Amino acid sequence: MDFKSKFNNWAERINKALDGYIIEKDTPEKTIYSAMRYSLTAGGKRLRPVLGLAVCELLDGDVEEVIPFACAVEMIHTYSLIHDDLPAMDNDDYRRGKLTNHKVFGEAMAILAGDALLNSAFEIMLEASAREAEGGVSPKVLANRIKAMGIIAKASGASGMIGGQVVDIESEGKKIDKERLLYLHNHKTGELIRASVSIGAIYAGKDENIMSAFSKSLGLAFQIKDDILDVEGNCEKLGKKTRKDGEKSTFVTLFGLDVAKEMLKEETNKAVLALEKVCADTTFLKDLAYYLLDRQS
Amino acid sequence: MDFKSKFNNWAERINKALDGYIIEKDTPEKTIYSAMRYSLTAGGKRLRPVLGLAVCELLDGDVEEVIPFACAVEMIHTYSLIHDDLPAMDNDDYRRGKLTNHKVFGEAMAILAGDALLNSAFEIMLEASAREAEGGVSPKVLANRIKAMGIIAKASGASGMIGGQVVDIESEGKKIDKERLLYLHNHKTGELIRASVSIGAIYAGKDENIMSAFSKSLGLAFQIKDDILDVEGNCEKLGKKTRKDGEKSTFVTLFGLDVAKEMLKEETNKAVLALEKVCADTTFLKDLAYYLLDRQS
Repeated sequence: MDFKSKFNNWAERINKALDGYIIEKDTPEKTIYSAMRYSLTAGGKRLRPVLGLAVCELLDGDVEEVIPFACAVEMIHTYSLIHDDLPAMDNDDYRRGKLTNHKVFGEAMAILAGDALLNSAFEIMLEASAREAEGGVSPKVLANRIKAMGIIAKASGASGMIGGQVVDIESEGKKIDKERLLYLHNHKTGELIRASVSIGAIYAGKDENIMSAFSKSLGLAFQIKDDILDVEGNCEKLGKKTRKDGEKSTFVTLFGLDVAKEMLKEETNKAVLALEKVCADTTFLKDLAYYLLDRQS
Repeated sequence: MDFKSKFNNWAERINKALDGYIIEKDTPEKTIYSAMRYSLTAGGKRLRPVLGLAVCELLDGDVEEVIPFACAVEMIHTYSLIHDDLPAMDNDDYRRGKLTNHKVFGEAMAILAGDALLNSAFEIMLEASAREAEGGVSPKVLANRIKAMGIIAKASGASGMIGGQVVDIESEGKKIDKERLLYLHNHKTGELIRASVSIGAIYAGKDENIMSAFSKSLGLAFQIKDDILDVEGNCEKLGKKTRKDGEKSTFVTLFGLDVAKEMLKEETNKAVLALEKVCADTTFLKDLAYYLLDRQS
């Protein structure tokens, strides 16, 4: 199967699983389910969960088992976008070509939908783990589940993704240095991408850091590309306002477009090089790295 | 030891533990730790965590073990208050006699501090459970930890506390019926109070529902008293604006002050009666029920 078909297959499995996790119940709080589903099904690339599945498979793990955790990461990613888009934060009206959550459901509901998605991530991971515990899996497996949840929790928390968003907000309108820019993105985008790779490895019974050189470079490349697209990208293809980072320091504003493009190539090559050291068929991940390099949205 | 001293002792243990969980690190995202600590140390009663400890002790569990989970519940409660106070929600300037989080740190940081506290709740529970797993506890204990985290997650989620807040927001300015009012409070306030009692029971190796008749009535009584205090309470003692529920349906607006007071007594008595059926020394919890009945803040 070619890269794109394989990616789409996995993304579809994730979409199906996500669809089953958030059901529109006819209970008094039903609006929250619509608000959660709205953003969860708004056309995300599913990069993070697919990474988790791909890493798990190539390291000989059972992909089926990692799905709730991969979906949890996608829920956390989605909640972070809903909250980032709020008027008090980036104040964005469009995301992935659709109105942002608060534009459709109002600010209060958007805040709560974000809260609920973050909460839901832990609900589904804990439910899946409780089912396994009841099924009588070994203490080693249970310990591994707890470890995987802990890695995701730390990656998305104050010293992880949220911390990156704090630095982003506090850096607005200021010229920041390279060190701070790297810190910002290593946390805001990098942590969750690295966590996705780590849980894939853990579910395959491997050390969580076995592919961290790859995931670190991939995460950084991803962000540099985002900054380049913000300048060069097509607003329609991106589905959001471009050049909105005018008041923010980015890899492009800090180093210029040409250097940023060089950095992107360099980090992508570093990611691919890191894969060479993994004793497994890493073709899909290499293709993924180059696909992200060339993406237009 | 008299009731008040015992309550304060436990609250102090919780305060000390919370203090150790959120440290003001000197990292680029340091503002978030200040914002989290600000609300976490703003003088909460610690009702929920104390309930967890008290139930665990009277059912012969090890109180020390339940502390991270009790603190997690308090963090979730605190985050919900920060988000409830936001301009897009209740738009409150004061809470417990201090400026609300967004009044001090700004809206963006308050949203993130709430997110981070919710996230942190799972971080500390998972860290504690991972330590236990490494220490080689039995699979039964690990399964119980996963179950306890699952109960907390569900209680605070879209079908629990967040759902209650959704109904609250959507009921604003409308006259709602008793059924909806009960649904609202059973979710918004009740779920987390019931979860606190459940985790105390689980940590003592008992069924999580062993004291649910008590916790259900206690939670409801707590909310009725809140509604009464909103009308009769002293603004200074409460540390927040009173009569702010003017645009909201409450037990007082729906039934009148006298009936609400009768309902409060009735639910408190039901809670105390439920305790009679528990084969243990429930003196502290009885005192707690009456203490909450008479509280002025």
